[in-house]
Formats: sequence, structure tokens, C-alpha cells
Amino acid sequence: MLTYNLERNSKTSLYESLYIFIKHDILSGRLKNDERLPSKRSLSQHLKVSVITVENAYAQLIAEGYVYAIEKKGYFVSLVEKNTRSLKMPALRKTQVTQKEYLMDFQQNSVFSESFPFTVWAKTMREIILEQDKKLLQPVDFNGSLELREAIAQYLFHFRGMSVNSENIVIGAGTEYLYNLITQLLGKEKTYAVENPGYTKVSKIYGINGIMCEHINLDSKGLSVNCLRNSKADIVHISPAHHYPTGIVMPVGRRQSLLKWANEKEGRYILEDDYDSEFRFVGKPIPTLFSTDYNQKVIYFNTFSKTIAPSIRISYMILPTHLFEKFNTQMNFYSCTVPSFEQYTLARFINNGSFEKHINRTKKLCRQKRDAVISAIRESPLSDKVTINEEKSGLHFLIKIDTRIPDNELKLLAEKKGVRLVFMTDYLFTPEEKYAHILIFNYSGIDISRLHEVLQILSNLIK
Amino acid sequence: MLTYNLERNSKTSLYESLYIFIKHDILSGRLKNDERLPSKRSLSQHLKVSVITVENAYAQLIAEGYVYAIEKKGYFVSLVEKNTRSLKMPALRKTQVTQKEYLMDFQQNSVFSESFPFTVWAKTMREIILEQDKKLLQPVDFNGSLELREAIAQYLFHFRGMSVNSENIVIGAGTEYLYNLITQLLGKEKTYAVENPGYTKVSKIYGINGIMCEHINLDSKGLSVNCLRNSKADIVHISPAHHYPTGIVMPVGRRQSLLKWANEKEGRYILEDDYDSEFRFVGKPIPTLFSTDYNQKVIYFNTFSKTIAPSIRISYMILPTHLFEKFNTQMNFYSCTVPSFEQYTLARFINNGSFEKHINRTKKLCRQKRDAVISAIRESPLSDKVTINEEKSGLHFLIKIDTRIPDNELKLLAEKKGVRLVFMTDYLFTPEEKYAHILIFNYSGIDISRLHEVLQILSNLIK
Repeated sequence: MLTYNLERNSKTSLYESLYIFIKHDILSGRLKNDERLPSKRSLSQHLKVSVITVENAYAQLIAEGYVYAIEKKGYFVSLVEKNTRSLKMPALRKTQVTQKEYLMDFQQNSVFSESFPFTVWAKTMREIILEQDKKLLQPVDFNGSLELREAIAQYLFHFRGMSVNSENIVIGAGTEYLYNLITQLLGKEKTYAVENPGYTKVSKIYGINGIMCEHINLDSKGLSVNCLRNSKADIVHISPAHHYPTGIVMPVGRRQSLLKWANEKEGRYILEDDYDSEFRFVGKPIPTLFSTDYNQKVIYFNTFSKTIAPSIRISYMILPTHLFEKFNTQMNFYSCTVPSFEQYTLARFINNGSFEKHINRTKKLCRQKRDAVISAIRESPLSDKVTINEEKSGLHFLIKIDTRIPDNELKLLAEKKGVRLVFMTDYLFTPEEKYAHILIFNYSGIDISRLHEVLQILSNLIK
Repeated sequence: MLTYNLERNSKTSLYESLYIFIKHDILSGRLKNDERLPSKRSLSQHLKVSVITVENAYAQLIAEGYVYAIEKKGYFVSLVEKNTRSLKMPALRKTQVTQKEYLMDFQQNSVFSESFPFTVWAKTMREIILEQDKKLLQPVDFNGSLELREAIAQYLFHFRGMSVNSENIVIGAGTEYLYNLITQLLGKEKTYAVENPGYTKVSKIYGINGIMCEHINLDSKGLSVNCLRNSKADIVHISPAHHYPTGIVMPVGRRQSLLKWANEKEGRYILEDDYDSEFRFVGKPIPTLFSTDYNQKVIYFNTFSKTIAPSIRISYMILPTHLFEKFNTQMNFYSCTVPSFEQYTLARFINNGSFEKHINRTKKLCRQKRDAVISAIRESPLSDKVTINEEKSGLHFLIKIDTRIPDNELKLLAEKKGVRLVFMTDYLFTPEEKYAHILIFNYSGIDISRLHEVLQILSNLIK
């Protein structure tokens, strides 16, 4: 007869412990397939527990398919996959990777998550669960759900002045993933040009894919087309709307010479990363390169990681028609990497105006915070040691520090005081003196109540 | 004065149409920044609508940031990004890609979505929304959320007999994505071996990445290690638990010689795809290669696309520790591609036993359907023209047809009758006579009520 020591502890009920014991014996093979289990009554007497307890345990085992019942015959062990080896439990990481706590961290340029209307988002999620029901289990088109692609096309039309066909849009789980796709589409044998200074992750992705990558210097108008001409590059990766970290907005003239460069040779393309165009506060908008290109030379990228949340992992690219056709014939075996549920939720969130409302609110809050931070700096002891360069940049601005202390040294000193700094030089692939001593002030994530203290610390370090 | 023709139609309320008109004029630039809007009263008189209507329209415009109000001064146009070009609406695809309707389609080997406990899943989603709240906006570890990785480790321990450290697990948006990651980790210059016949998508992925790929023939025990030795391959991609489409379960001996091959040279690895091990019905389980490898030569892959739904896009790989460390140092700039929400939901679904329960139920249903289908074939006029090869395979079995009609021809004939067939030869990279006339009977998705008719059709075609 099965014998278990059922302790009456508060954690698990008696029937649960019994269920666990029997299940374990079935999985371990101690109880064989089709072996008959003791009757409820006899087991309850044997273990000194109520019949109900045994009944519940058996019911659970039947529900989960470990045990089957034959009327008037009793309960038997089902055919289940046994653990064939003696096992030890896997060692589980009990603690999260401990992240250093900073008094202030300028390295992360997170969006204001505080301004995100989570209740509206959650409500939308619940609506979608109700409405879509089992449709959520069905896969969407390989380039993303029609609902979301159309919502994005509408959004881009109204708020970015772009006329886009929803069929040319490809939805993917993050821009990083889409960069991987595009290198597969355009070819890994080509040389790619990236901005110097620039967003370092892009060249990391090219690097790990074994792709030749050249770093092109910037002048006051952005990426230098002359340097580009002197490179082997056929693909250039830029963020003309708002370059990170310099904040340069590429003027129309420069954009035109870039398009000219692309049109001079078959197989040349411009990858336009419009990643935070939603957060421009000042200066009249300049149309995207994609909209001003009439020769199918521009591939447009944007993401919702900054406008909604990094955890949502939805980005998209817009392919010129001939490239979409190539993608459709050569790469349509890839399933769309974003779950249907997130796609339907986001489409609804855009279509019912919540997204637009959220962006406008966030812009206001950002502008307010930015002004507050800047005036705080102006009133601080730091003010006479720095020049603030507001530019037209979105979620950060630049501060030129009047000091001889090398950037790395200043970083270490600040780190000791609990302040994590990030400098323009951190985004340089080849050093250039003109970029020294320029602090990147990512204000969007900071706790403004600590700003006074932090500015004091910095001014002490610099003096 | 602003003049709009506000039609009293049922679709949109008066205030909505007014709001849309004004918004359009702001975006189009017809209304300039900081331009004063008419007072509510005057506009209402001018347009012959109630003051409330104008009030509501203005309120909406203010809420969305198009208009700001100054007390005792009135309403003004906010600084918003204008559409700089005259625009036409993007052409939207009005109809979905029409997919051909088949009387029966053997090409898709979908899981039973009918057995998926969607209500439980939806309940779990709602729980997670409530509990995690804004935590859903936070990104998870680059290799996936700790919750899900631990849930998977526990699951593999109990139901696959694997002892796995949750730290070595990498969560990704589909196995296809993980294959891309692994080629970046192991190197694209290496030659990869895949099974012939085999899962064609794998070599497509290697192909589009410009990776050398050799197709290794199978014998009765699976991939031939002799052929592997004669190839240039250093990485081999196999599915030993249940090869698709042959259904071969690789015996222990062959597994050992594969491990031996891997151990003979630095940098050799085995990619073990365990994709539908949950659906084995008969035969005692054989431990995974991963569990029997003590030299860190095996990378394990599995997915939830088949056990939950293709739309969920959650797969995982388990890296040997030294490879995880390499991944952690060289590739941790990649964010995890699966949304936090899906990860928390799945972790809960596994931890509360729902997943296990679902698998056991589905296995039962599959077995029943399989038996029903097989006996239907046995009783059909087809029976004396075919040999059924049950093997130990999961969601499909094989039927050898006694005919001289080439597979492609038979496919066309069946297609005309509304039956979509798939043959072993469809999964061959280099033709081999022994694989001719073998039908892959993917029964899991078929409508059994139509089976009788379909079997009649097939038997007519063959005679």
C-alpha cells in the first residue's frame, strides 16, 4: 500500500501533498503504467486521512492525465513519460543580477514611463482579449498584422506627413531584429557606413554579423557625404531627424546630396532611423528622407520602444516596393516575431487616439522637465563652468564643460559620488578632440528632486 | 471665422466632426501656431451649433495638445508638427490575401487549437495585467525574464528529465530568431550540416545568411555519422527525439557516435531541436542529447509554437555554460525579443500546472484522433493500395502508396479535387528513390468528418 507521511502544515493542504506524492511516484516510475491504485477508502484508512482527501487527490491526478478510472474496477496509472534518470533539481538563480543604485544615472535615456497611460493600455488589452478571443492564437501575416500595419500607415500620414502603403510595412520584435533582416535582404557582403559619433549598437550588430562597417565623421550638418564618397560603403545608416548624441537635425541640402549619392549607383541604399522623431519640441519639421525619395533608395525604421515601452518590442521598417517584393519571395518563410496580441492591442491604441494623446502629453511633460532642468543648471554653481547646448534635441541636451579633466577620469570621480555620467566621447569610434568634455544630459529619466545635490557634486568635481 | 459644413449624420457626433475639422486645419498649417480660435459663443452662432458642441470640441483639442487656453484671453493653436507636403491618403489594402480553401489540407501540421484552454489562458493574462501592472513596461533580462526561465527549467526537470540551470536559458521570439542568434554566436564562416530529408526552413535560414550548408543523408537510425564525417561541417542540426518527416527516433547508439564526433574537434557543436517531444505517445522516452552530453557540445532548442500557439512566438535555447558566457559578453546588447507580458503569462501558465494539464489533454486527443484516422484508412478502399507506417511519430504518420504516379503528378491531381497533399520528397534536398510515394499524413489539423470522402478521392486517383 502507498505510504506517505502527510504532514499537516499550513502551506499545502493534505490532498495537495498526497497528489504531489503520487504524481512524483508515477513520474519517477515507482508506480508502473496501468498499475492499480488502492481504493479511496482503503488508502484513506491506511494514511489516516478522510476519504474526501483521497478523492480530491485522485480527481486532480485524473484531471491532469496521470491516472484513469475504470468504473467498478478502480483507479489506474496512465501511460505517461517517465523521468528516466535519477535527477537533482536544477540550481536556480535565487537573486536577480544586482544592479548598482545611482544617486543619478545619465546613461539611461529612458522615456518617461510615468506619463504612460497604463490604465488605458490595460483596458485596451482586456478589450482585445474579449473581442479577438481564440483569434489571438492564429498567426498574423509574415510582415505583421494588417490591422497594425494600417494603423501605422494612418499614423504616419497624419503625424509624420508620410504617404505609405501598409503592404510595404514590416513589423518586427525590435529595430535590432529588423537590422538583422535588412542585412539578410541587402546582402552581408556589402559595406555599411554608420555615423561617427553615433548609436554604437548598430555597428555592434553589423560586427557580430561579420559585416564590413565604416565609421563616417560628421560635420555641423551631420554625416559628411564627402567622407561617405571616400568609403567603400554602399549602404549608409543615419538618423537625420535627430542624431544621437549630437542632436543634429540634418538640413534639407545635406539630405538631397545623400539621395544624390544613393542614386549614383545600383544597389546603394539609405537606412533612415527616425527613432525619436515624435519628441521634437522646436524647429519646423523636415520631411523624412523616405518621403522625399522618389527612386526607392530609402528604407525607413521606427520603433515603439521609446514612445510606449521598451518591454513591448514592436518596431517596423518600410521597404521600397521592389525590396518588399524581394523580401516577400526570399524571406517570407520567417514568421512575424511579434505576438498577435501585442499587435492588435497597439493597433487599437493607435486607432482610438490614445497613442496620439499619450505622445502629446509626454511631449508637454518632457518640455516642462527640460526647461526646469536647464534653469536649475543655470542657477547652480555649475553654471559658470559649462555651456548648455540646447540644439533641437529631444530627450537629451548637451553640456560643454570647461575643464582639463579627461572625460574618463571625470566619469570615475562622479561614479564614486554615485553619479553616472555619459560623454559624447563614449559614442566615438575614432577619437576627435572637438568632442571632448561634452556631457550628454539625458534628463528624461532623472529624479528632479535630486538635481540640486547632483549639480553641486559635479561643480565640486570640476573646480 | 472658421467655416465648416457640419453634417448631421449618424456616424460622428457634431462635436467630433468639428474637432476633426479644426485638428485637420491645425495639422495642415491652415491654422498657424498661437493663432487665436474664435470664442465658443461666436463659433457656435456662426456654425449654428450649441455652445456645448464647440466646448466639447475645444476640450478634446486641448486634451490632445492641439489647442491651449489662456484664462480670460481665449483659445490658441499649440505648436504642433505640421504636415509639410500636400498629402494624399496612403492606399490601404482593403482585402486580406485570399488563401485557397481546401477540402482537406495535409500541408499544415498545426496543433489542435481546439484543445487549447483559451479561457484559462485569458484568465492568466488578466491576472498578470492586474498583478504586474506597470512592471509590464519594464524590460526583462536580455536572455529572458527570470520567472519564465525558472518555470522552463522546472518543467524540463519534471517532464523531460533534464537538469538545467535557468541562467543558461535564452528566450527568443521563435526558433527561427534563435537560429539567427546561434549562427552569430558560433560563427558564420563555419559549415552547418542539416538532415536530408529534413525541416527545410532551417537550411533556408542558413542560406539567406550566406552560411555554407551541407545536407546529410539519413539511414534507419537517423543522420548518418559517416556521411557527416565526410562533410566539412563543424555544426550539425538534428531533431533526434522525433525527426520530421521520417518520424525516426534516434537510438542511443547513434546519439553516442554523434557526441563522439563532436568531441573529436574543438569548435564542433550539435544543435538539438526537440520541437515536438511533448507529443510522443508510445515507446519509452530517450533522454535528450543535451542531458547525456558532458562536454558542453550540445545546444538545446524548443518552442511553444506547437504546444500553445504559433502566434505566441516564444522559443528558447539552452547554451552550455562557456557559450552562454560568450553570448553574455559579445551579444548582450540584444534586448530580449519577447514582450514581458507574454513571458509572465506563460511562466504563470506553466507554474500553476495549466500547461502540463493542457499537454496531457492534447496528447490524449491526438492519440484518439490518430487511432480514428488510421482505422478509417484501414476500412477505406485506400487500404489495399497503401502501407501505413505508424512509427513513433507525433502529429503525423507516413503512408507508403503503391503507385507509379510521380509524387508531383499525384499532388496536382489531388489539388484539382481540393485535397492538398505533402510527400516525403518535398523535404528532400537531393532526390533519393527510397523516399518516393510516401505521403505525410498530418492528421492533427484535419476535419475528420470529411475523411471518408477524401480517402475515396485518393483511392480513385491512385487506381
